Amino acid sequence: MNIDMIRAAAQRLKGHARRTPLLTSPFLDEIAGRQVLVKPECLQHTGSFKFRGGWSAVSALDEATRKAGVIAFSSGNHAQGVALAAAKHGAPAVIVMPADAPKLKIDNTRALGAEVVLYDRAGGESREAVGDAISQERGLTLIRPYDEPQVIAGQGTTGLEIAQQAAELGVNDGDVLVCCGGGGLTSGIALALEADAPAMRVRPVEPEGFDDVTRSLASGEIQSNATQSGSLCDAIITPAPGESTFPLMSRLCGTGLVVSEDEALHAMALAFKRLKIVVEPGGAVALAAALFHGDKIEGDAVVAVCTGGNVDAEVFANTITKFDKH
Amino acid sequence: MNIDMIRAAAQRLKGHARRTPLLTSPFLDEIAGRQVLVKPECLQHTGSFKFRGGWSAVSALDEATRKAGVIAFSSGNHAQGVALAAAKHGAPAVIVMPADAPKLKIDNTRALGAEVVLYDRAGGESREAVGDAISQERGLTLIRPYDEPQVIAGQGTTGLEIAQQAAELGVNDGDVLVCCGGGGLTSGIALALEADAPAMRVRPVEPEGFDDVTRSLASGEIQSNATQSGSLCDAIITPAPGESTFPLMSRLCGTGLVVSEDEALHAMALAFKRLKIVVEPGGAVALAAALFHGDKIEGDAVVAVCTGGNVDAEVFANTITKFDKH
Repeated sequence: MNIDMIRAAAQRLKGHARRTPLLTSPFLDEIAGRQVLVKPECLQHTGSFKFRGGWSAVSALDEATRKAGVIAFSSGNHAQGVALAAAKHGAPAVIVMPADAPKLKIDNTRALGAEVVLYDRAGGESREAVGDAISQERGLTLIRPYDEPQVIAGQGTTGLEIAQQAAELGVNDGDVLVCCGGGGLTSGIALALEADAPAMRVRPVEPEGFDDVTRSLASGEIQSNATQSGSLCDAIITPAPGESTFPLMSRLCGTGLVVSEDEALHAMALAFKRLKIVVEPGGAVALAAALFHGDKIEGDAVVAVCTGGNVDAEVFANTITKFDKH
Repeated sequence: MNIDMIRAAAQRLKGHARRTPLLTSPFLDEIAGRQVLVKPECLQHTGSFKFRGGWSAVSALDEATRKAGVIAFSSGNHAQGVALAAAKHGAPAVIVMPADAPKLKIDNTRALGAEVVLYDRAGGESREAVGDAISQERGLTLIRPYDEPQVIAGQGTTGLEIAQQAAELGVNDGDVLVCCGGGGLTSGIALALEADAPAMRVRPVEPEGFDDVTRSLASGEIQSNATQSGSLCDAIITPAPGESTFPLMSRLCGTGLVVSEDEALHAMALAFKRLKIVVEPGGAVALAAALFHGDKIEGDAVVAVCTGGNVDAEVFANTITKFDKH
């Protein structure tokens, strides 16, 4: 895993992934006490950065392998990212999803051209068993959500853009806050910045109670979360940092930051009001850290990556109404 | 008023106004029955395209005039656009607003650095009288919201970007739908496309009951609206097309399109769900026409400009919840 793979992925993504802008607001600067630059990956195709990794992985396959098809396990953003990337390559995609996933996510994944295979999570059926059987039968290639070099390379293209866009605004150093699940995006951006903006430092951000990466970085060993459910920040809840991403984060990242769910929701409401973008709770933890944990951040400017915007209307409506008076 | 003024404005805006991306969604394409390209000016500084015209006008003044200061009449997006543009130039700005304008808009305009002068709309006080007195006393330059060549030139830079960004996606012809109030943005984009994408045609879009531009274009003479209040699409409600903008629209635009308020709200909800952007009701009428009036549109692709995103949390929350099941 190295910077050349990220640059090669950027070439393959060109004209296909969206180059999201870098947004600012004087109102957010005032709250944070420093300049806040927001990278809105919620505006990426399928509403999250996951399309980058999906496209990178699918486009890196040789043609015969790609034609045979790909498979992914996901009930969320990775599913949609891989589904659209595969569809645009004319490659079959099977997405294995829990039968009790929200109907909208199942419908969307199908509408993006993927074949959805449901498994009975509650009944103890293993998604790996279901997926392995289909993969072997059809010769599908598994695309993992983060422990996969070409996926990390695709996510890392976000970092190449941040380095260039921040420099255009005169920002060359400071902390880059990234909403962190398994660490694919975080480690990819860290690698990109090591090459293109070495005075910038990536800091993973997580919700309280699901701070496996922060604890892993602090202890130097992979730590797990006690539970994987019960958070509105579901998009970035993973069991533990990845085997490939953890060494990269250990080498390149600063200490992790942890925000409360209420702070994440407040950041969502401010992104609505001041930036006019739709961010999901898990995608707002980095902005929450930038706004409400400034004492733990270094530099006159801070970059926050808003990683996704796939949030239910009801959650979004309740959140922006609740924080309307702030 | 000509294309050279727009190109000169683009030079002055470079590095200051945001180059908004061009967004797409396969889900919107399916509803529209053709490819839909969305230009999200809600992501512009201050949440609407008005910053372009404000910056263009302020930056076009000679230094002594600019130092003396500028003045604008507005309770909405133009106020904020001019306020921020002036502040970034270090120029004083006076914004004359009705005393009964929403407190948030008054507070925002002040926070952007402008001096807000309130007048008593209900008591019959004339904003022109209030404004004229201040202007003469202090030597301020009035920046009109649309009947002002340098403002039209600034708004027209949106058209230069559309021509280039659509061409990158392989789209060189078809209708370009623009939410239309006084016609500054509409005529500016029309001039830009005449030069850079002559096979594209601008179509103004208005809400039912406030279709002064559509009727004016049809009759060949300036027509007024019967009323100027009572619409959620307040951002684009003006008494009549401008004296400078109407001749440009007459020469360059196709027939107007009219959508219902419910269609505008539905488009807002779909922009939330599929594009992850926040659009105000008046800023969503063009997208509504693209999605729900396809029989009156020509071409395999359509461009819709979402002009602003300054919407109250309550209106937005109610709208996305109402249309959640669609």
